[in-house]
Amino acid sequence: MLSKNRIKQITSLQQKKIRNESRTFVAEGHKVVMELLRSPMTVREIVATDDWIALHAASFHGVKITAADDAEIKKISAMQTACNVVAEVEMKPQKPFALDASTLYLALDSVRDPGNFGTIIRIANWFGISTILASDDCVDLYNPKVIQASMGSAFRVDVHYCNLPQTLAAAQKIGLPVYGTFLDGENIYTSSLSKNGVVVLGNEGHGILPETAAQITRRILIPCGASAADAPESLNVATATAVVCSEFYRQCIKKWNH
Amino acid sequence: MLSKNRIKQITSLQQKKIRNESRTFVAEGHKVVMELLRSPMTVREIVATDDWIALHAASFHGVKITAADDAEIKKISAMQTACNVVAEVEMKPQKPFALDASTLYLALDSVRDPGNFGTIIRIANWFGISTILASDDCVDLYNPKVIQASMGSAFRVDVHYCNLPQTLAAAQKIGLPVYGTFLDGENIYTSSLSKNGVVVLGNEGHGILPETAAQITRRILIPCGASAADAPESLNVATATAVVCSEFYRQCIKKWNH
Repeated sequence: MLSKNRIKQITSLQQKKIRNESRTFVAEGHKVVMELLRSPMTVREIVATDDWIALHAASFHGVKITAADDAEIKKISAMQTACNVVAEVEMKPQKPFALDASTLYLALDSVRDPGNFGTIIRIANWFGISTILASDDCVDLYNPKVIQASMGSAFRVDVHYCNLPQTLAAAQKIGLPVYGTFLDGENIYTSSLSKNGVVVLGNEGHGILPETAAQITRRILIPCGASAADAPESLNVATATAVVCSEFYRQCIKKWNH
Repeated sequence: MLSKNRIKQITSLQQKKIRNESRTFVAEGHKVVMELLRSPMTVREIVATDDWIALHAASFHGVKITAADDAEIKKISAMQTACNVVAEVEMKPQKPFALDASTLYLALDSVRDPGNFGTIIRIANWFGISTILASDDCVDLYNPKVIQASMGSAFRVDVHYCNLPQTLAAAQKIGLPVYGTFLDGENIYTSSLSKNGVVVLGNEGHGILPETAAQITRRILIPCGASAADAPESLNVATATAVVCSEFYRQCIKKWNH
C-alpha cells in the first residue's frame, strides 16, 4: 500500500523541476520496466500490482518493491491508460561531453512532442547512433511520455542538451559535416553521405530554426513520391528521422564492406 | 452557438458505430481542416471560433459554418488539447476494389494504435503509395486520432479493409510478391525489391499474425546497427513502415532511371 504522501511524491515527478531536484524520474509499464531492470540504471523502487510481482519477481535484483492496487497505480501513473507497474529511477549520471570527429550524431532542434522525442531515441538506438544532441528547448528526456515512447532506448542512448547552434559550430571546427533536411536540399538517396557528422532534425511546426540553419553545411532532402496535387506538406519529424537514419546506415554499411 | 443536441450529435461521432450509420466523421485542427478544404471531400459543417472564421473565411467555398466559443469546441473535441476548428465531413464513397498487378501496396495486419495508423497513412502518401490494405481488426480510418495523425493524408490515400490473408492469397495469384518484415528475413538494403507487390506490417505487440505470415512470400529484415547488448527489441510499426517505404522508393527510382 502507498501512503498519501508517497503518492504525492511520485506524481510530483511528472514535473521537470521536481525531477531535476530529486535527480529521479518515473518509468511505467511492463516492457519499459523490464528494459530498466536489464539496464545499468539504478532503480529506487518498483510499485506494482500483486499479479505483476508474482509473475516477475525473478527479475528483481535487490530492488525495493511495493505492492499497490489498481486504484493506487492509476493515481501515480502519468499515462491515460495506467499499467500495472511503475518504477522510480535515478537519472543517468551526467557525463562530460566532447564531440568526436569520427562519430555520427543526431541533433534535435526544438523537438517538443514527447512521443516524437521518445520515438526518435528508439530509432537512433536501432541504427547504432549512441548520442543525440538536443537544443535546450527540446522536451525533457525524463518526461514520462518520452520514457514511454522510447521503449527502453532512453536508458541506452545518451542525450546531451546544449546550445545547438554553438555545438554545431564546434562540430564544423573539428571537421564534422552538419546535415539538415530542407525542401531545396540534395536528394538523400543519391547524395554521398558520410559515416561521421551531425544530422539535424527540426521542430514539428517550424522545421529547423534560422539560427540553427545557419550552421548547416549539407542540405539534404527526402524526395516525395506523390504528385504535387496529392503530396502531403511534410513528414512527421520521427518519420523523417527514420528515413534519414536508415539511409545513412545503408550507405555506411556499404562503405564499411567495400 | 451550438445547441446541446448538436454537441451531443458531434461527440457521438467519436463512436465507430454512429459514424458508420451517419456516414460522417469529425476532423479537427487548423492544418487538418485546411487540407480538407483543399481535398475533394464533402464538408457538411465547420464549427470554429470567431477568430478562426475571421482569418480563414476566404478558404470556404459554400461550406456551412457555425461560430462557437472555446468551451463549446472543447466539448465537441476528441483531442486532449482542443483546437479552434472542428469539421463534420462525409466519408469517402466506397469504391469497388480490385488488386492491380503493377501496383505497390502497403498492408496492415491488426494495427490498433490510431497514432500509428494515421502516421502510416501519411508515410504511404509521401512515398506515393495510394492504397493501403487493412485487416478488418485494424483501427477505423475515421477514428479522430487517425484523422489527426494522418495530417490530411487520410483524405488522399485509399484504405481498403479486408480479410487480409484472403486478399494476400489473391495478390499472389496475380503475381504480386508479398513482403513481410521478420527477424530472420533478408537484409532489405541488399535485397532486390520489386516496384509492385504488397508490403505487410504487423501488429504493435505481436507482429505479423500466423495466418497472415503464411501468405508472405518474401521475408525481409531491417538490420539493426546496435550491438546485441544495446539493441532495442524492435522498431515501432510506423518507424518500420517509414524505413521500408523509403527503401522501396529508393530502389524503384533507380529501376525507373536505368
